[in-house]
Amino acid sequence: MTKLVAKGAATLGALGLMVAPALAQDSGVTAETQYILNTLLFLIGGFLVMWMAAGFAMLEAGLVRSKNVSMQCLKNIALYSIAGLMFWITGYNLMYAGVDGGFIGSFGPYSFDPVGGNALDTGYSTASDWFFQMVFCATTASIVSGTLAERIKLWPFLVFTVVLTGFIYPIAGSWQWGGGFLSEMGFSDFAGSTLVHSVGGWAALAGALILGARKGKYGADGSVFPMPGSSMPLATLGTFILWLGWFGFNGASQLAMGTIGDVSDVSRIFANTNMAAAAGVVVAIILTQILYKKVDVTMALNGALAGLVSITAEPLAPSVLQAVIIGGIGGAIVVFAVPALDKLKIDDVVGAIPVHLLAGIWGTFIVPFSNADTSYGTQLIGIVCYGVFTLVASAIVWFILKAVMGIRVTEEEEALGLDKVEIGVEAYPEFGIGSGR
Amino acid sequence: MTKLVAKGAATLGALGLMVAPALAQDSGVTAETQYILNTLLFLIGGFLVMWMAAGFAMLEAGLVRSKNVSMQCLKNIALYSIAGLMFWITGYNLMYAGVDGGFIGSFGPYSFDPVGGNALDTGYSTASDWFFQMVFCATTASIVSGTLAERIKLWPFLVFTVVLTGFIYPIAGSWQWGGGFLSEMGFSDFAGSTLVHSVGGWAALAGALILGARKGKYGADGSVFPMPGSSMPLATLGTFILWLGWFGFNGASQLAMGTIGDVSDVSRIFANTNMAAAAGVVVAIILTQILYKKVDVTMALNGALAGLVSITAEPLAPSVLQAVIIGGIGGAIVVFAVPALDKLKIDDVVGAIPVHLLAGIWGTFIVPFSNADTSYGTQLIGIVCYGVFTLVASAIVWFILKAVMGIRVTEEEEALGLDKVEIGVEAYPEFGIGSGR
Amino acid sequence: MTKLVAKGAATLGALGLMVAPALAQDSGVTAETQYILNTLLFLIGGFLVMWMAAGFAMLEAGLVRSKNVSMQCLKNIALYSIAGLMFWITGYNLMYAGVDGGFIGSFGPYSFDPVGGNALDTGYSTASDWFFQMVFCATTASIVSGTLAERIKLWPFLVFTVVLTGFIYPIAGSWQWGGGFLSEMGFSDFAGSTLVHSVGGWAALAGALILGARKGKYGADGSVFPMPGSSMPLATLGTFILWLGWFGFNGASQLAMGTIGDVSDVSRIFANTNMAAAAGVVVAIILTQILYKKVDVTMALNGALAGLVSITAEPLAPSVLQAVIIGGIGGAIVVFAVPALDKLKIDDVVGAIPVHLLAGIWGTFIVPFSNADTSYGTQLIGIVCYGVFTLVASAIVWFILKAVMGIRVTEEEEALGLDKVEIGVEAYPEFGIGSGR
Repeated sequence: MTKLVAKGAATLGALGLMVAPALAQDSGVTAETQYILNTLLFLIGGFLVMWMAAGFAMLEAGLVRSKNVSMQCLKNIALYSIAGLMFWITGYNLMYAGVDGGFIGSFGPYSFDPVGGNALDTGYSTASDWFFQMVFCATTASIVSGTLAERIKLWPFLVFTVVLTGFIYPIAGSWQWGGGFLSEMGFSDFAGSTLVHSVGGWAALAGALILGARKGKYGADGSVFPMPGSSMPLATLGTFILWLGWFGFNGASQLAMGTIGDVSDVSRIFANTNMAAAAGVVVAIILTQILYKKVDVTMALNGALAGLVSITAEPLAPSVLQAVIIGGIGGAIVVFAVPALDKLKIDDVVGAIPVHLLAGIWGTFIVPFSNADTSYGTQLIGIVCYGVFTLVASAIVWFILKAVMGIRVTEEEEALGLDKVEIGVEAYPEFGIGSGR
Repeated sequence: MTKLVAKGAATLGALGLMVAPALAQDSGVTAETQYILNTLLFLIGGFLVMWMAAGFAMLEAGLVRSKNVSMQCLKNIALYSIAGLMFWITGYNLMYAGVDGGFIGSFGPYSFDPVGGNALDTGYSTASDWFFQMVFCATTASIVSGTLAERIKLWPFLVFTVVLTGFIYPIAGSWQWGGGFLSEMGFSDFAGSTLVHSVGGWAALAGALILGARKGKYGADGSVFPMPGSSMPLATLGTFILWLGWFGFNGASQLAMGTIGDVSDVSRIFANTNMAAAAGVVVAIILTQILYKKVDVTMALNGALAGLVSITAEPLAPSVLQAVIIGGIGGAIVVFAVPALDKLKIDDVVGAIPVHLLAGIWGTFIVPFSNADTSYGTQLIGIVCYGVFTLVASAIVWFILKAVMGIRVTEEEEALGLDKVEIGVEAYPEFGIGSGR
Repeated sequence: MTKLVAKGAATLGALGLMVAPALAQDSGVTAETQYILNTLLFLIGGFLVMWMAAGFAMLEAGLVRSKNVSMQCLKNIALYSIAGLMFWITGYNLMYAGVDGGFIGSFGPYSFDPVGGNALDTGYSTASDWFFQMVFCATTASIVSGTLAERIKLWPFLVFTVVLTGFIYPIAGSWQWGGGFLSEMGFSDFAGSTLVHSVGGWAALAGALILGARKGKYGADGSVFPMPGSSMPLATLGTFILWLGWFGFNGASQLAMGTIGDVSDVSRIFANTNMAAAAGVVVAIILTQILYKKVDVTMALNGALAGLVSITAEPLAPSVLQAVIIGGIGGAIVVFAVPALDKLKIDDVVGAIPVHLLAGIWGTFIVPFSNADTSYGTQLIGIVCYGVFTLVASAIVWFILKAVMGIRVTEEEEALGLDKVEIGVEAYPEFGIGSGR
């Protein structure tokens, strides 16, 4: 039951281009029951991934300083909303409509199935598919938000989110899940280590390079000034939310549970996903104890997330031991990459680049380790295609925004905190040292 | 698959008064499988709506001042518990047993199905139906809690909750979902814009008028003193929890997923619910930027909730565009109604009246915009019936409580904060300016 | 449909020792559809119980002082990760493989079903079963974490977690759910009042006795110095998360939903679970008002949890009224046991011993009240077996750890707070009075 182009195949089916693989000839489960169960998987997976929006909000609220917390809250609920609107207006059809081995789908808003549902032979409700694919688009935008925190202006960020969720993500996604040229080449990314996490990470990296570091973060002598986050319990809560949501992210990317084979694969994916995250945590704890003589809780949290990102490209094929190895190396990547980025003076407030971009590359590259139907060469081609396209496209948009409206607040505004300057609602008006820091 | 009296029809079926519509003649899904799937929908929907109790707790904990946070936490877990007990002792049967076109059901506690389940022809487990309907009752009580925060005494609030969840809500609900006179007239409220949200809002309004504003909130010269909430991330978390829970609230109000038509309708409801909320957020952000030159994060959060309330009366019939319009106008209502209530010196601490009462009226009124089987006239009649009954009944209860035990703390107690006075456990004993504010 | 050895029977089935009861002869649901629905129950129940790890993290983060919050966050994500790894390496097979009426299973790591699933006659995917059983193991470890907070060293706690989740819990569990000697005797513990909650509680008690109380907690004159928790909203959030997760904990312990009888039983369990928790809250509120003239929010939260633990041994058989009585008495136990433990100078930071150990014993003992197939005598035998084994085994491990690496930080470190000493990341660097307390 290995699936080379899982999402591509099923969504092609949804568009009537081919018979959906979801309606397998499994004696004992009728086509109607399969349709219902497949749809239910999308709905459960969809609400779990939707919940990840709250996870990113809490993670970022916990990892920025208190003077910028309201801004992160606002940005996260706004970007989730924008993603929903844009994935309706242009996104879904750009990603899935008539890609046919090419580089892009078609323009135009998406229509749900009529009241009472669509024809049985699609294999599932198309509205459930839209909902499930939309929350992946929103996740991509969430990744950008954290890296650029504490110094980006609100409105250019929102405009970038419009472009990312309405155009960059769907076009890039069409190459693989839409049945485009990469899926024809045999590239494999089961649930989005590259299509979601690295794409978000590349967009964040482009923004971080163009925006520059926070004032005072890096000294001229190479010193790094720590700017600790305001709330570890909120960051921990955010990580647990993301971990929970990832069962939907990876598990429901099986795209079907109307046969005993499919539902067993979903189960395997749940278990492997959990093991990779657990290994990421344990590796990050042990490494920080060895390196710094103390355990760093933010590294443990990011270790979990890196384990999750790493297993996302192939959560089905690995044995438990393979999942542990893949996720554990993801955790190690974070521990070493966070200080390396600081050496390069790339200021990534929440560690999103190590977690989503680097662990995403790692997870995508290592797919052939457990999945014999893939090759390291093709995986590399896919990684490079996504990197070049997203980095270039994002950089162009950031440069235009910089020229047209400016993307960075002034030094005084940055010192005062974005909550006072752009939101007008402080996150904790009764606590803390406020803007004095 | 338009359903005029969705909840009424199915629950009548549960009571054996008619053949449940859930067991449709859909070749390919057996009656037993339909029973299981329908029950599963109630269970999933039920736990998602139960989770909304946590959402209200976090939203309110974030929007009150730190000296009253423990009180809001206590009230929210208490009201959810009371709702469960009262909806067993009197609520369910008052709402659903033998209403038969009338104004009230019958008295007496509810019994679950025996171990091993009830007969197949009910179409689902009656315990799952009880659980699902109970969490709606609890939601109604949650709405009242926020409006009256920071000055109401604990025990009269709890007694009001007993009356609201055991009598007012179920009697009002019987008129429509119990198959009472409004359902016979053709009134339509799919998942409770009026039956849950406006009823909660009317009860809150009655309380706010009788209780009066917080000391110092309104100056004699018409000035409004801002009393900002203590934690924006908790308010944001609460909003995301509510958004997540709403997929259960609206989606499972389809009451069945044993046919491809029903599960497709659930999917459509998920997507429309999400779009209305997204539109509410975007409209609130744009409007507050225009009106105040800064974006107000609390308005964005309430915009999401208003969008959700607005679509709740009819989440199935609208096209995506219609859902966006309905939800977006809900967001606009909040932005304009919050300052308007302050002009009227109605002190609504968390904005529950704009969100639940006003957007609930809007959503209920606009049903015929997308559902041709309804009429604006009948919708208005229903809105007025619920408003008059709930406002009068609630006011009577509040007046009795005021006379018998008093409903408001003293001025000194209000200044000190309810946590010290009535709970004895401060929310943040190590932080903040405490009672000095 | 009374099930004496619910978990035992089904997991024996998974091991091929007997025909799984899950594939009942229910005309109208095919074996394939039953397999899918049973697996889905494990997956949904599993992610809900996984979410309880976040609940414990938030509960504990809220109930410790701010200087130890990062440590609790770290410990909770670490123990969940360790539990996952250990339940793979040794736990599952020790608990379920070849116990056969005895005292222990077999050694060796667990293998998931192959891609594409296992044979139909197991009745469900074995990977889903592993996932579901693993999160119960993790819950046991979570219980220990809270009791020992604020003075235990990180690494001995993590080593204890390895032993608890890899050996103590699975061996003890094998006696009942693995089909060991207690299940043959007729002992009954449906979802783990004893196997999970009391086992965690006994391990915590052993640790508390050996570790000693926090410095300054108890005066020589018998006085008790209150050390209030840092955040009531986080403690409230944690409680709501646990309540939500408990629907999976108890509901999915039915282990099957492929027949109308099974899914109806799951529904009944949902409703009873909710009612017991609600009663625990209401009793705790009323009792603290009477005893202390103020309502104690932490008691209300622990009342909910005690109600949940109490109903866990038998959530299916009780009538609603019986569930209310069982849960309400659980709430009362907490209110009286918390000060009693302080009298004994047993320092339980979050109240885990009253909630999980004492309410767990109560819930297990009272099973025959509603389930005629059980006897008070056998229940007592089971309670004593688990108590003696867990207390002795845990004490041995704690003593070894104390001798080998020390289990307690120094007095100065305790005063400074564990976050500064062992984690190096403060929970709230911008707020609070920090280490001065």
